[in-house]
Amino acid sequence: MPDDKKVIVALDMMDPVVARDMAKRLSGEVFAFKVGWPLILGSNADIVVDLSRYSKVICDLKLADIPDTNSWVTQKMRENGAWGIIAHAFVGGDSLEAVVKAAGNVKTIAVVAMSHPGSSLFINKKAKELVRVAAGAGAYGIIAPGNDIKMLKKVKKIAVGLKILSPGIGTQGGSASDAIASGADYVIVGRSVCNADDPKNEVKRINAAINTVLAQRNGPAT
Amino acid sequence: MPDDKKVIVALDMMDPVVARDMAKRLSGEVFAFKVGWPLILGSNADIVVDLSRYSKVICDLKLADIPDTNSWVTQKMRENGAWGIIAHAFVGGDSLEAVVKAAGNVKTIAVVAMSHPGSSLFINKKAKELVRVAAGAGAYGIIAPGNDIKMLKKVKKIAVGLKILSPGIGTQGGSASDAIASGADYVIVGRSVCNADDPKNEVKRINAAINTVLAQRNGPAT
Repeated sequence: MPDDKKVIVALDMMDPVVARDMAKRLSGEVFAFKVGWPLILGSNADIVVDLSRYSKVICDLKLADIPDTNSWVTQKMRENGAWGIIAHAFVGGDSLEAVVKAAGNVKTIAVVAMSHPGSSLFINKKAKELVRVAAGAGAYGIIAPGNDIKMLKKVKKIAVGLKILSPGIGTQGGSASDAIASGADYVIVGRSVCNADDPKNEVKRINAAINTVLAQRNGPAT
Repeated sequence: MPDDKKVIVALDMMDPVVARDMAKRLSGEVFAFKVGWPLILGSNADIVVDLSRYSKVICDLKLADIPDTNSWVTQKMRENGAWGIIAHAFVGGDSLEAVVKAAGNVKTIAVVAMSHPGSSLFINKKAKELVRVAAGAGAYGIIAPGNDIKMLKKVKKIAVGLKILSPGIGTQGGSASDAIASGADYVIVGRSVCNADDPKNEVKRINAAINTVLAQRNGPAT
């Protein structure tokens, strides 16, 4: 049976105790967890080892350095059991290739568009070229905003062979169903799950909504 | 007396013991130390506290995230005694302003150009615009390559009121004297100091070469 879980929960807290507790509660219901520098700094890189007991862990590092430095950081996260690493494509193919190479079996996911106002100045104008950089570097997937359907559809058209992971769902305005219907393979949800009265139920609700969209797309089972 | 030390030593190692030893040896001779994610991951953010005993510490994080995340990471490094934080300008003014705001008295230094081949694809083409983003966000300074004199001179012309910190010196091909003569305020040197037989003497030698350039520029003392 294919993995029908399409929700990645962003653990956007700094306290490792809170993060571990949330991961434990959501274990078995999510596709993966996403952790960033604030949580890693709130503890250390071992948090990735800990959280990997509950699901796959994607390290959202937004790496944007020279190839050597990108490589060293990726290597460390690989050693700690990360399933995926998020890096910027904006710094060029060589920096992204350094991540792919150091990552080995760990998935490299490249940022090609963002959703905050400042991203319209440079990054989002280059989204299509950034998808090509990601594909050229051998990335597994790309990050494209789930609350900007026009952008999502634009990158989907050319993101052949690349998985699309979409943040900006829930509190940030995007709808999981719309994002999936527009080409996202996975949705990344933070606050609207972690701040829910029943986070596990909220993930189930989002997954159910997504599976309705997928069932409509795929037609009736035969 | 003004601080006549113009050398920032990049502690590009992952081992905190080696980094602390080098910092101790170079204490009093450098303008600051630069540390990045590899060293922070090799220990934890407390390494910034430790190294601050020996000189100012610039955290080269190349932050490139949404405003909230940039802000959280900056706040953490500020609490740990960082003197400066390096962030990307290409993610836009709001993300950089979030760093400046969270940094308070800590200096924000924005990347406007890099020196690896991939940087020519997007970032370096936008260097002038990135300088304007840095100035607009209230940054203290910018990062521009010391081994690309043409680029350095180009950004110097418009970097009014911004300090210029230049990496790429030594092993990476740039000359400290040339960089300072072309507009850099400080040079960032890594391997050619840390791998020298006598690192302290190497820093002194670079500082002396820089001071010769500055003396020529300023004319004879009266």
